[in-house]
Amino acid sequence: MSRAQTIPPFHVMDLLARAKQLESEGRSIIHLEVGEPDFATARPIVDAGIQALRQLKTHYTAATGLHELRQVIADHYQHKFDLKVDPRRVVVTSGASAALQLALSVLTDAGDSILLADPGYPCNRNIAKVLAVESIDVPVTAESLYQLNAAHIAKYWQANTRAAMVASPSNPTGTIVERDAMKALIEAVAVAGGHLIVDEIYQGLVYDLEEYTALSLSDDVFVVNSFSKYFGMTGWRLGWMVVPESYIDSVDRVAQNIFLAPPTISQYAALAAFELDTEEILQRRVTMFKERRDYLLPVLSEMGFKVTVSPQGAFYVYVDCSAITDDSFQWAKDLLEKEGVAVTPGIDFGTFEANTHVRFAYTRSVDELKRAMCRIARFIK
Amino acid sequence: MSRAQTIPPFHVMDLLARAKQLESEGRSIIHLEVGEPDFATARPIVDAGIQALRQLKTHYTAATGLHELRQVIADHYQHKFDLKVDPRRVVVTSGASAALQLALSVLTDAGDSILLADPGYPCNRNIAKVLAVESIDVPVTAESLYQLNAAHIAKYWQANTRAAMVASPSNPTGTIVERDAMKALIEAVAVAGGHLIVDEIYQGLVYDLEEYTALSLSDDVFVVNSFSKYFGMTGWRLGWMVVPESYIDSVDRVAQNIFLAPPTISQYAALAAFELDTEEILQRRVTMFKERRDYLLPVLSEMGFKVTVSPQGAFYVYVDCSAITDDSFQWAKDLLEKEGVAVTPGIDFGTFEANTHVRFAYTRSVDELKRAMCRIARFIK
Repeated sequence: MSRAQTIPPFHVMDLLARAKQLESEGRSIIHLEVGEPDFATARPIVDAGIQALRQLKTHYTAATGLHELRQVIADHYQHKFDLKVDPRRVVVTSGASAALQLALSVLTDAGDSILLADPGYPCNRNIAKVLAVESIDVPVTAESLYQLNAAHIAKYWQANTRAAMVASPSNPTGTIVERDAMKALIEAVAVAGGHLIVDEIYQGLVYDLEEYTALSLSDDVFVVNSFSKYFGMTGWRLGWMVVPESYIDSVDRVAQNIFLAPPTISQYAALAAFELDTEEILQRRVTMFKERRDYLLPVLSEMGFKVTVSPQGAFYVYVDCSAITDDSFQWAKDLLEKEGVAVTPGIDFGTFEANTHVRFAYTRSVDELKRAMCRIARFIK
Repeated sequence: MSRAQTIPPFHVMDLLARAKQLESEGRSIIHLEVGEPDFATARPIVDAGIQALRQLKTHYTAATGLHELRQVIADHYQHKFDLKVDPRRVVVTSGASAALQLALSVLTDAGDSILLADPGYPCNRNIAKVLAVESIDVPVTAESLYQLNAAHIAKYWQANTRAAMVASPSNPTGTIVERDAMKALIEAVAVAGGHLIVDEIYQGLVYDLEEYTALSLSDDVFVVNSFSKYFGMTGWRLGWMVVPESYIDSVDRVAQNIFLAPPTISQYAALAAFELDTEEILQRRVTMFKERRDYLLPVLSEMGFKVTVSPQGAFYVYVDCSAITDDSFQWAKDLLEKEGVAVTPGIDFGTFEANTHVRFAYTRSVDELKRAMCRIARFIK
């Protein structure tokens, strides 16, 4: 099979196409499948974008981004985590997707492998496939909070493995790698002779815990972040990565060649993302996400979905639906047809126990979530 | 060597860093190394971007771009070339870089090879390297207008070769693959059992000839285009690709996974790129580029640079400087130090006769070009 053929489609895309068709026929559809905040980008960021356009900031920037933005991101680590990060280690990218591609490009060769959690964000293993890197999908359960841990590294690491990747908070499970577990993970990967890539793109969207960054535990991790989720800048396609000192040059070189540069206007707009008035808007949104989650969890439990681990971040709940169906993909299709609610079946996140799990995204208002839950209750009774 | 290590740096980047240092010391530097129009994006496009921001168009689009933009691009082929293109075949991308990566991802596997011209745009072979694809660099001379032709395909095609790539107009040579030569090339590649990728990112920047698109000769070519050059939208990071019908699905699937979507605001802005008032501005710029080229060519000849083929497109002149130096990289460094003129040495475009060639970009005004030529004349006499 060619590399393109090994990349499975997102099944939720078929659901989405069907949802759109139903909507065009006048049906009311509630979208709980979308991994994108429902809020538009905060006004101060939008205004900074308009300002940049008025000033005709339309030329290329350096491949690793505007110096000012790299500095502001470094300052952000100082303010938020009391952590000094050299701005030279901050690489601005066209979204976290580009950052991950850069990390894998400099850490692996064709035929190497990486360790990933199953369930996990499917694009990660597919980016690996495009780069001719094998993804070893490690089945994870509630026991490890659906995260890779040091024991997994010891058990699954192969001779050709170069890196392991964790996401904290995670998509689809919303769980976090706790600080001690992250320390152990970093050590285990170092002992194995590889690198740890930590996806922190949902940083800021954390509800019960004090946050930390993996950067505070080691200078040798690759930390991927994004302006899409907490900062609400999805369509702007902007992210960043903090790389170990010794990888600055190779990441720059690959970025020059495969991306040229991240979008200029997005970069100028993002300079406003860390300002105080923006922060206030974003913090109000965090409160709303938390309210949605707190509404959703008990209702799902009451309906018979098993919430095996309470999600502490992102905007997802990943539940065991085995009491309701053992074919979550078909169930999701039927739910859409009969009640007009779109959710993401487990199969989009891997294969391990995928047919008995489903993901709900709380990227809709509590009112809409309530309507959706009424429909689901009616559907399953 | 790991894949990242096989990617050479752009030597011109070292020159640029030195140029910036000299500028910071107060020296006057004339930049003839920059592959980016000196004009800012045309006002109607900028205004459309501002309008999109005011309307808070900040969410993701589909992976292959806004339906409206794909339609407008298809219409563009109808208006400009009297050619019907199904908008489903138009894939909007984060610049031509992303388009090329998609084309190679669906056409090759690790260990395959592609044919490229040497000299040629260096990123193309480096994108191949990142995807674990070997680039077979075919030495090309003035005899074939520095382009691959059917004879090259027959001679250099290997059992593992999957595609050949040409750029028309080309970077660094500004030459064009003429219609009959393109037909022969398409046939030769088909006979070899592979695919032809045609880079048309300098389309519109053509000075003496009537233009055509490779799409008018075959539905089986992959045609890459960009909003960066003719449309002057470099920093917006937006391009497109027209793919054969049978590749629509696989390109979509890879795009979803490795890029998610191209930048939203750039896409809304680009809707204005094909409007009449924009077209008038862009056509005036084409006239200015032509004036610059027509000034530059005879002056370079007089100074002893051999213009082996008159460039008919893009904004580059690639000259044989063997009468002046047999080490164009060192020569470029010395020219920068002594006279403050930055040019790109041949070595950035390949290895074939690279040390006796140099590229001048005419992305500066005629007045600035005149000042640069005075300095160069003084330097070489």
